[in-house]
Amino acid sequence: MSAPQPINPPARVLLGPGPSDVAPSVLGALAKPTLGHLDPAFLEIMDQVRDMLREVFGTTNELTFPMSGTGSAGMETCFVNLLEPGDRVLVGVNGVFGTRMADVARRCGAEVTEVAAEWGTTFSADQLRAGAEGTYDVLAIVHAETSTGAHQDLSAAKTVADEVGALLLVDCVTSLGGYRMELDAWGVDAAYSGTQKCLSCPPGLSPISFSARAAARLANRKTPVQSWYLDLSLISNYWGSDRAYHHTAPINMLYGLHEALRLVLVEGIDVRAQRHRRNATALVAGLQAMGLEPRVAEGERLFPLTAVAVPDGVEDAAVRRYLLSEYGVEIGGGLGPMKGNTWRIGLMGSGSTRRNVTLCLSGLRSALEAQGRTVPGDPLAAAAAAYAG
Amino acid sequence: MSAPQPINPPARVLLGPGPSDVAPSVLGALAKPTLGHLDPAFLEIMDQVRDMLREVFGTTNELTFPMSGTGSAGMETCFVNLLEPGDRVLVGVNGVFGTRMADVARRCGAEVTEVAAEWGTTFSADQLRAGAEGTYDVLAIVHAETSTGAHQDLSAAKTVADEVGALLLVDCVTSLGGYRMELDAWGVDAAYSGTQKCLSCPPGLSPISFSARAAARLANRKTPVQSWYLDLSLISNYWGSDRAYHHTAPINMLYGLHEALRLVLVEGIDVRAQRHRRNATALVAGLQAMGLEPRVAEGERLFPLTAVAVPDGVEDAAVRRYLLSEYGVEIGGGLGPMKGNTWRIGLMGSGSTRRNVTLCLSGLRSALEAQGRTVPGDPLAAAAAAYAG
Repeated sequence: MSAPQPINPPARVLLGPGPSDVAPSVLGALAKPTLGHLDPAFLEIMDQVRDMLREVFGTTNELTFPMSGTGSAGMETCFVNLLEPGDRVLVGVNGVFGTRMADVARRCGAEVTEVAAEWGTTFSADQLRAGAEGTYDVLAIVHAETSTGAHQDLSAAKTVADEVGALLLVDCVTSLGGYRMELDAWGVDAAYSGTQKCLSCPPGLSPISFSARAAARLANRKTPVQSWYLDLSLISNYWGSDRAYHHTAPINMLYGLHEALRLVLVEGIDVRAQRHRRNATALVAGLQAMGLEPRVAEGERLFPLTAVAVPDGVEDAAVRRYLLSEYGVEIGGGLGPMKGNTWRIGLMGSGSTRRNVTLCLSGLRSALEAQGRTVPGDPLAAAAAAYAG
Repeated sequence: MSAPQPINPPARVLLGPGPSDVAPSVLGALAKPTLGHLDPAFLEIMDQVRDMLREVFGTTNELTFPMSGTGSAGMETCFVNLLEPGDRVLVGVNGVFGTRMADVARRCGAEVTEVAAEWGTTFSADQLRAGAEGTYDVLAIVHAETSTGAHQDLSAAKTVADEVGALLLVDCVTSLGGYRMELDAWGVDAAYSGTQKCLSCPPGLSPISFSARAAARLANRKTPVQSWYLDLSLISNYWGSDRAYHHTAPINMLYGLHEALRLVLVEGIDVRAQRHRRNATALVAGLQAMGLEPRVAEGERLFPLTAVAVPDGVEDAAVRRYLLSEYGVEIGGGLGPMKGNTWRIGLMGSGSTRRNVTLCLSGLRSALEAQGRTVPGDPLAAAAAAYAG
């Protein structure tokens, strides 16, 4: 065959559920010269990545580093390392990622109890408690449900985890870098995330963190971890002082993550969290002015991701296509029961800006008008009022 | 904590066992604007990556794409998808990667028969046959043993796989992009590779390919694949025409792989293979002129990776440190029984050049002389003679 032309990807504005817009300095870091995975200069970069990750996760956990796969690899890492066949897991299921956690846990041979809540809602301690039967080894829950835009109160989950004797395992894919995270203060035992959401690094790595309790559970296993690639007892020898070769680390992706974490610290975690809150609040005000209603009740809404109902009579996919072709703006569609009736708008990391709020609201207005709708109010005025308020 | 300085990795010459030197246009591709994983512009890039991978693997297999992890994730992908508990696997073990395959297969609950050969040697059909007992589901072998520099004749493995009724599973991590691969003609049922060897792309992706027979085995499983992340029945829905979301693809790494595969096709697979042969032959001539002996017999030696014995009385690590500090050249040490007594010199992909052969030989000569050795002959003259010959 003849070789295709070199790629020339268009510059989109990524306002979907991730990947999010990547800062130029992060893209630049990806293109720095590749080092060997045991080069002293690379080991120093690894150490800095670990230190920064601990800071951004809010933890002193020794077992804190990025896994060499995307967020779903991080999810699987937590389950395969913590679970042995027959272990009992309580999973909160209120969206795609709770569903996926239950699936992954079953593939580890665990006995899984699913506690369901309507998509777009979160769990109270009473709801979780009501679904539990006896004791559990692990309670797994999603902090920031990317599929619905719901923000779980982790203190409710921690209370019930303690009651049922379980370690607390948390999906932080869409919260890390968008909120002040406090894994240690919250009593989280295992957490995983992704790089392509509020860290604004391209997808490909999954930061994880295990508490001392979780590490002890790993150390006391009776059976080998079913995944060699994700076996933390092996990988920690590479990220730790031994530097023992396990697999070849994704060098250039780690350059990107280094720069992305650096940008979080340079901005300041609280300032960054406040930026996410402020832009999301203005976005919602603008959406509501257009008659578009959020899927999640106020107080339970994520700031990095806003899910909004597609109005009756409006064609979901046509609107997204219009935004992409006319504005170069990507927003996401819904998944599962929200497919076809929900848009997911991400204002994550570098992408959480007033410019993008304005662009998204303007584009959506045009898209709705292109389908013959008249919007009831002025979204930009409503957003401006929110910024001023 | 305060943020560290931006990274500034030194420009090494990577002549170890991988990662190899990355071409400027591949580094440039990594830094192109990130697209969404369902963006039509990205789907087109995916299609081109698949087409090029098939060409470079020498296959028309439908199930051919890069997994979102490093080469070891590709290894695990092959085993977890093909094996169910109790299945029987025959593994050829003559280095680190055969050892790893046996470990991974056991973690899948398989009954593993290891056939051992001395590190640095390869298997004849008779050797494999002698180790087999009855029939097997899978025969697994390493085509290019990166830990020893040995090049396995796959026709011997295919013969025995057929005799014992097994699918043939092959580690092609260090052969893909350095040889003309002919998966279909060779009768390989499952193959995995990595991007950081002869494709000269940074580490982070693992190309895999499954034959129709292997795909049928996957389709007829009685138990779920134990890894959700590596479950090909799910992933193929994303890489296939359904484009169903599974996990968020590592977008920018796939840009890099696109460019790396493109460079293979622009050069031509046979020309590239010939380049690897020519430079490795000259390297060996130069090493021998210095009294350094290859670990692998002629005819079984890999061209992309040459393992050479550390002479008695020479300190392995000191030589490697000298090369890195004085020449900015990385070569690899040995693993397992070859630790401390073997150097591994990679001439892979973009790094397989006469310039690098010259640099490596000159650097090694200086390093040996710095340890008080006198080399018996002129390595550059011997290399030049090999190029001329």
